[in-house]
Amino acid sequence: VAGAGEEENMAAWLVAKNTLKIMPFKLPPVGPYDVRVRMKAVGICGSDVHYLRVICCSSSSLTERMKDNVAYICLLFECVQEMRIAHFVVKEPMVIGHECAGVIEEVGSGVTHLAVGDRVALEPGISCWRCRHCKGGRYNLCEDMKFFATPPVHGSLANQASKQFSSISISLQGEDAILINVVLPENVSLEEGAMCEPLSVGVHACRRADVGPETGVLIMGAGPIGLVTLLAARAFGAPRVVIVDVDEHRLSVARSLGADAAVRVSARAEDVGEEVERISTAMGGDIDVSLDCAGFSKTVATALQATRGGGKVCLVGMGHNEMTVPLTSAAIREVDVVGIFRYKDTWPLCIEFLRSGKIDLKPLITHRFGFSQEDVEAAFEVSARGRDAIKVMFNL
Amino acid sequence: VAGAGEEENMAAWLVAKNTLKIMPFKLPPVGPYDVRVRMKAVGICGSDVHYLRVICCSSSSLTERMKDNVAYICLLFECVQEMRIAHFVVKEPMVIGHECAGVIEEVGSGVTHLAVGDRVALEPGISCWRCRHCKGGRYNLCEDMKFFATPPVHGSLANQASKQFSSISISLQGEDAILINVVLPENVSLEEGAMCEPLSVGVHACRRADVGPETGVLIMGAGPIGLVTLLAARAFGAPRVVIVDVDEHRLSVARSLGADAAVRVSARAEDVGEEVERISTAMGGDIDVSLDCAGFSKTVATALQATRGGGKVCLVGMGHNEMTVPLTSAAIREVDVVGIFRYKDTWPLCIEFLRSGKIDLKPLITHRFGFSQEDVEAAFEVSARGRDAIKVMFNL
Amino acid sequence: VAGAGEEENMAAWLVAKNTLKIMPFKLPPVGPYDVRVRMKAVGICGSDVHYLRVICCSSSSLTERMKDNVAYICLLFECVQEMRIAHFVVKEPMVIGHECAGVIEEVGSGVTHLAVGDRVALEPGISCWRCRHCKGGRYNLCEDMKFFATPPVHGSLANQASKQFSSISISLQGEDAILINVVLPENVSLEEGAMCEPLSVGVHACRRADVGPETGVLIMGAGPIGLVTLLAARAFGAPRVVIVDVDEHRLSVARSLGADAAVRVSARAEDVGEEVERISTAMGGDIDVSLDCAGFSKTVATALQATRGGGKVCLVGMGHNEMTVPLTSAAIREVDVVGIFRYKDTWPLCIEFLRSGKIDLKPLITHRFGFSQEDVEAAFEVSARGRDAIKVMFNL
Amino acid sequence: VAGAGEEENMAAWLVAKNTLKIMPFKLPPVGPYDVRVRMKAVGICGSDVHYLRVICCSSSSLTERMKDNVAYICLLFECVQEMRIAHFVVKEPMVIGHECAGVIEEVGSGVTHLAVGDRVALEPGISCWRCRHCKGGRYNLCEDMKFFATPPVHGSLANQASKQFSSISISLQGEDAILINVVLPENVSLEEGAMCEPLSVGVHACRRADVGPETGVLIMGAGPIGLVTLLAARAFGAPRVVIVDVDEHRLSVARSLGADAAVRVSARAEDVGEEVERISTAMGGDIDVSLDCAGFSKTVATALQATRGGGKVCLVGMGHNEMTVPLTSAAIREVDVVGIFRYKDTWPLCIEFLRSGKIDLKPLITHRFGFSQEDVEAAFEVSARGRDAIKVMFNL
Ligand SMILES: NC(=O)c1ccc[n+]([C@@H]2O[C@H](COP(=O)([O-])OP(=O)(O)OC[C@H]3O[C@@H](n4cnc5c(N)ncnc54)[C@H](O)[C@@H]3O)[C@@H](O)[C@H]2O)c1
Ligand SMILES: NC(=O)c1ccc[n+]([C@@H]2O[C@H](COP(=O)([O-])OP(=O)(O)OC[C@H]3O[C@@H](n4cnc5c(N)ncnc54)[C@H](O)[C@@H]3O)[C@@H](O)[C@H]2O)c1
Ligand SMILES: NC(=O)c1ccc[n+]([C@@H]2O[C@H](COP(=O)([O-])OP(=O)(O)OC[C@H]3O[C@@H](n4cnc5c(N)ncnc54)[C@H](O)[C@@H]3O)[C@@H](O)[C@H]2O)c1
Ligand SMILES: NC(=O)c1ccc[n+]([C@@H]2O[C@H](COP(=O)([O-])OP(=O)(O)OC[C@H]3O[C@@H](n4cnc5c(N)ncnc54)[C@H](O)[C@@H]3O)[C@@H](O)[C@H]2O)c1
Ligand SMILES: [Zn+2]
Ligand SMILES: [Zn+2]
Ligand SMILES: [Zn+2]
Ligand SMILES: [Zn+2]
Repeated sequence: VAGAGEEENMAAWLVAKNTLKIMPFKLPPVGPYDVRVRMKAVGICGSDVHYLRVICCSSSSLTERMKDNVAYICLLFECVQEMRIAHFVVKEPMVIGHECAGVIEEVGSGVTHLAVGDRVALEPGISCWRCRHCKGGRYNLCEDMKFFATPPVHGSLANQASKQFSSISISLQGEDAILINVVLPENVSLEEGAMCEPLSVGVHACRRADVGPETGVLIMGAGPIGLVTLLAARAFGAPRVVIVDVDEHRLSVARSLGADAAVRVSARAEDVGEEVERISTAMGGDIDVSLDCAGFSKTVATALQATRGGGKVCLVGMGHNEMTVPLTSAAIREVDVVGIFRYKDTWPLCIEFLRSGKIDLKPLITHRFGFSQEDVEAAFEVSARGRDAIKVMFNL
Repeated sequence: VAGAGEEENMAAWLVAKNTLKIMPFKLPPVGPYDVRVRMKAVGICGSDVHYLRVICCSSSSLTERMKDNVAYICLLFECVQEMRIAHFVVKEPMVIGHECAGVIEEVGSGVTHLAVGDRVALEPGISCWRCRHCKGGRYNLCEDMKFFATPPVHGSLANQASKQFSSISISLQGEDAILINVVLPENVSLEEGAMCEPLSVGVHACRRADVGPETGVLIMGAGPIGLVTLLAARAFGAPRVVIVDVDEHRLSVARSLGADAAVRVSARAEDVGEEVERISTAMGGDIDVSLDCAGFSKTVATALQATRGGGKVCLVGMGHNEMTVPLTSAAIREVDVVGIFRYKDTWPLCIEFLRSGKIDLKPLITHRFGFSQEDVEAAFEVSARGRDAIKVMFNL
Repeated sequence: VAGAGEEENMAAWLVAKNTLKIMPFKLPPVGPYDVRVRMKAVGICGSDVHYLRVICCSSSSLTERMKDNVAYICLLFECVQEMRIAHFVVKEPMVIGHECAGVIEEVGSGVTHLAVGDRVALEPGISCWRCRHCKGGRYNLCEDMKFFATPPVHGSLANQASKQFSSISISLQGEDAILINVVLPENVSLEEGAMCEPLSVGVHACRRADVGPETGVLIMGAGPIGLVTLLAARAFGAPRVVIVDVDEHRLSVARSLGADAAVRVSARAEDVGEEVERISTAMGGDIDVSLDCAGFSKTVATALQATRGGGKVCLVGMGHNEMTVPLTSAAIREVDVVGIFRYKDTWPLCIEFLRSGKIDLKPLITHRFGFSQEDVEAAFEVSARGRDAIKVMFNL
Repeated sequence: VAGAGEEENMAAWLVAKNTLKIMPFKLPPVGPYDVRVRMKAVGICGSDVHYLRVICCSSSSLTERMKDNVAYICLLFECVQEMRIAHFVVKEPMVIGHECAGVIEEVGSGVTHLAVGDRVALEPGISCWRCRHCKGGRYNLCEDMKFFATPPVHGSLANQASKQFSSISISLQGEDAILINVVLPENVSLEEGAMCEPLSVGVHACRRADVGPETGVLIMGAGPIGLVTLLAARAFGAPRVVIVDVDEHRLSVARSLGADAAVRVSARAEDVGEEVERISTAMGGDIDVSLDCAGFSKTVATALQATRGGGKVCLVGMGHNEMTVPLTSAAIREVDVVGIFRYKDTWPLCIEFLRSGKIDLKPLITHRFGFSQEDVEAAFEVSARGRDAIKVMFNL
């Protein structure tokens, strides 16, 4: 495939249940509005397990196109038993990865705002710009979104060492380069650039929940998403942030990242009442906004009860789809429940937070791997283990 | 108690479980900012059963003061079996009633915007004006609200036939007359004035859900509250309103009030999927806002699934407190869930809707009673029966 | 140019100051996302005079590209004397027209939501979908907007009778068909379709000013834009609309279209105080929102003073750029001033208003012309004359 | 007046044009919801000159009650020549002062949230809680506001040295104590407490303009209000703040308080174009919000032109009432103009900013005086001089 002096592009393909293989990945030619980026840093999304289980089970949240292909992802993440028969058939292997940053190697003829050599972080999706969501400024809800590693669109975990210019095109099969907004400033590393993706989730949550200097914030769950949400809430000015988890190690990480209080809870539903009291004491004032970054009935119930009348509960986590929660007693206190789906137009703000030092993401990167077959296998194993692994990063 | 030429004021007291008695009710003297109103029309709130069950069972939504007194209400409405022991003790009898209108008979020295003889509809609550909710424009969330017929505040179902000027003071034990905003225009009857109270619930729901000329509206439940919400949604400009109920008679009332489609459903949870499809077909376009006026897991689940991405579900009904609903698949489509508690500053708008003819509440008044002991007993029986009884009205 | 059996497309070109000529206009081939539309109804925008004067004089509101070409427009509309020298040079002739509707004659290979024969109203602009405005849902502010008859983009006043498929492409030089949202329902004529463009201005103004069933509305100026804004305010539920003009004929049209009061004013600045009192009396309550559809210091001053504290003044008119107005006394009553630029995503709502009969635009069409050289000349003369000419329409 | 062992209360009275006299001031008895506060720190509002000129000249912003009494204030501030005849008559002397903090000496029987000895900062106004503004959460717009030192309500600059417990009641002639929200934390001084008043103006401006971590902020005017607005914008998370003044000393203060850039401008209208360019360069990115803290045609014109399309200009300053500004070219870029009047519910946030150290107000206090006749005269002279005097504070 690769000509003389040309490097063959390699990528991490999901080929069967739990099986990743590094294999060649031929990119389409760079169109007039495309750019080609040599990947330098790609993170593993620790939430894939939860996320994919939920979308398997709640088919209403899948577009038809996604339904046809969801099997690939589920095969990897062991939720086959929860899937409907129709999804079992492996259609075709897919390249994975979507938290990424790199250096531009080629730009299309129509691209004027980017140049070869620019260090860039990639927003992984491109929407249709035709539907009501896109026109109304909520393009993350677009039903025709093309998103890295969401079937049938390939992901961005790819690299090539011994050859000349192998790289990942961000073109998502021929679309244009609009998802690169901002070139990374000098003091922001490519690893941090890759982490703009998970940080974007926290930023979007804080925007939707309207976190600001008057907002007492509760965060349920101190996983990677809970932790970036903590950092985002701080950067949005939250004067006090309390975080909750079942795991003491994660709570200690949260404390070191600046949580005012970190409360250990159980996984037992019957403890909600007592825990709400402990959480309220830890806050020492109104809880104006609760951001659930776990996604279980118990965590949502806790959030609903702990939040003050007129406050907001923002659902980030996707642990379960069906939830049994005291919705009416929250409703009659006009506690609003808002969900989030990914993010929209968050990269410029994330990069500004990193540039100004308002947010430091580096402590979240706990493990680093190269891009060999063994590395990829080891990296996913570490990430799936959880706990002390917060963010696992590939350096390509 | 009453002196020469003075009429003794009579009221409907809840004295024991399911037992109402007309007995004298001595009003406090009219303070400088009080007015005294001769009650002319008082409606029965058909939702008391549901409402009270919920607040009994979800003690977190009760202020301490309410908890002490809730027993009275529950005794009437047969939810004793669901109550905790502590609530059984009857503390003291209470006057009931809160949907009311009448004619002013006396005004305090400081009242300048109202005069004797004014026909007025009464907003039943007075808040503290000191707390964050009151200062922030959400006084309905005030935790120190004094509200007709919510313990320990007496209600407004009272009258006096043989005596001279018996009446109900709206003073709520010494507070002032701020809750009367607008004198009723000539073409609005006192019965319609009394119905501003339930209409206010629909109006507040439409405001919170931001219903307007671009909003396709789904209403779950065609009881009195669902029906006033239908009328309110129309008055807010909703181009298309679909309403859903298990009861064919109520659906036919909804149709006659102008619903574009009225869909019969079952009470079985397993029918949600198929019913969402029928509802969507009936709408023939996006459902932007769903207003749940029933309050059961099934109706909320239907609303969550039927509403378009980026839309809103407004929880009005209080059938159950704990709900089992697919919250995550709604959250990842950013379908927001907003609750309502009563209303705030809705009377002027309700009266304007009635004056202009945009809303006609008269068809909702299905039964009328006088104010004798027998009438009161009969009226509550008719109201509790439901179905063909939409609004039961006392003429005093 | 046209081959056998092919009709040559003809268009109205602005070739020199005040000089329109019907001449051939070769369309680009229909691209994959383009459609070609046979124009059936094209309206004259009566506000061009004001609009163009303002953009000439306030160069800051022009993009560089617009500045280079603005001369053409100004030449037509007699504001040459106000223009800076640099603008005098006629660069190249341009096709005019942007309020239009027609029938689709050809669709590109990628267009799936439209078909040949569809009756469509055209939104005249296509934005970049890359900038912050486009991503944030305010695409009307896009600085790279390509808009019919805004240099260097040709307009849509074109037709061809004897040949086969002459038409206007809405492709705006190769862009795609996203600006056609909704096929016209049977009961909406193509003339009404063309009038969705001016109606969109009123709709966007009502959206930005948040007009609803609680909004007492004042409109300054009863020209075409003031009148469609009146109709839009009604459709948004405004309970009371007062309109103001210097011209008695236009006020009588406003009355016949449903204004609650139409107040005649002078053009003298010193009458503002007295006129504000007359206007307030005519409203008989709070003026919550004032929509200025004239755009002079006096009309804006009147709006600022007449509007209640906490209300909004929406600037639609562009009579002058520099204004001398009592801004501080409005500011300390927190009367917000919001401007509008055209519209965004208004066609679906306009068409819904027309379909449902909430708005009837037909009475606004006062003059109709064909598409000959003489007709075009006569039509523009009638339109420029103003007064009894509200909307002048071409039938092609 | 004062009995044995009782201290006679002394206050600073405005008795004639430019004439302040310390004289006895008898307080009403403490009502059930009142508190009596010994004043400890009272600041001079440097903006009185501008403010009062504007309200004199724009009678529409005065309530009838204020109009009757405005003469007192104007007499002091030399704008007599601008006043209408009717205002000349001195009605009665008035106590001045409204930026204040102190220690509670007596609480009414109904006050439960405050105790003798509490250190408190006072919000100077009490609104009616009956009007639409109060009910809707915008009580600062209440037309029946009773405000320290706004006729006919006396101010708070008072103290008593030789007697026992002289103090100022915050009761504002018999109203209740709702305006004290929060007891000062230990690390916040009483001087800083008094400065919550001017800081509140900046906080309210930032709230109305929606300043946050994504907002590039321009501030016109580096007087006391411009400077507290700078500090507030920072505390709301503004990543970049550029400030503008004609005075180099004030710009240097702004730099030392953390402005990213401080731009010197002229007072000549014809320089706007060139200065907008310099300001934009200093910002190095979009100006999303401009806060005008000067209030002249030139500063507002600069703000309107410098602000990006879709941004906001917030009018804080009140240099002039009539302004000549390019409003239309701002309107067609949808640059919204919002005014502010004082503040609402800002004390808790101000105190939180001080407690957490996000804002340090101490550098703004440039001069301190005692409470003798000579001190008061000297202090007002220093304050009127401006420039190096930012905030002049009395220690009582
Ligand atoms: N909405 C979106 O767009 C979006 C985007 C990314 C991730 N997510 C979701 O966010 C969630 C969090 O992601 P993550 O990567 O941090 O996952 P994670 O599993 O690493 O973290 C979840 C944390 O919640 C804690 N937890 C579990 N049960 C708990 C309980 N009962 N009480 C308190 N804490 C409890 C766990 O100990 C863990 O630390 C996932 O469900 C993921 O699917 C959503
Ligand atoms: N949030 C508030 O401030 C507020 C105020 C007043 C009333 N409410 C609540 O609103 C609700 C409605 O009040 P109402 O007076 O109309 O009560 P209602 O009981 O008369 O009406 C409820 C309607 O829902 C229908 N329904 C029941 N189960 C259904 C199902 N599975 N699917 C579809 N429809 C179903 C019933 O047939 C009935 O017509 C009550 O729960 C009440 O407590 C809330
Ligand atoms: N903001 C936008 O996107 C947008 C879009 C279209 C039109 N416009 C502007 O809207 C304005 C109105 O457009 P039109 O087509 O109706 O123009 P028009 O000139 O036909 O109408 C203006 C009306 O204002 C009246 N008027 C003039 N001076 C007045 C005064 N002192 N007091 C009261 N009324 C007075 C006139 O008699 C006339 O009826 C124009 O300035 C146009 O440029 C703005
Ligand atoms: N809206 C409100 O509720 C409210 C409350 C308090 C104060 N204010 C107003 O805020 C304004 C500022 O108050 P202050 O106490 O800081 O007054 P100030 O006079 O001390 O400060 C104004 C600053 O603007 C500068 N300035 C003057 N002309 C300028 C120009 N052409 N360009 C740039 N800068 C210029 C001055 O040098 C000065 O530093 C006053 O007008 C005051 O009335 C409004
Ligand atoms: Zn889309
Ligand atoms: Zn309250
Ligand atoms: Zn754009
Ligand atoms: Zn008020």
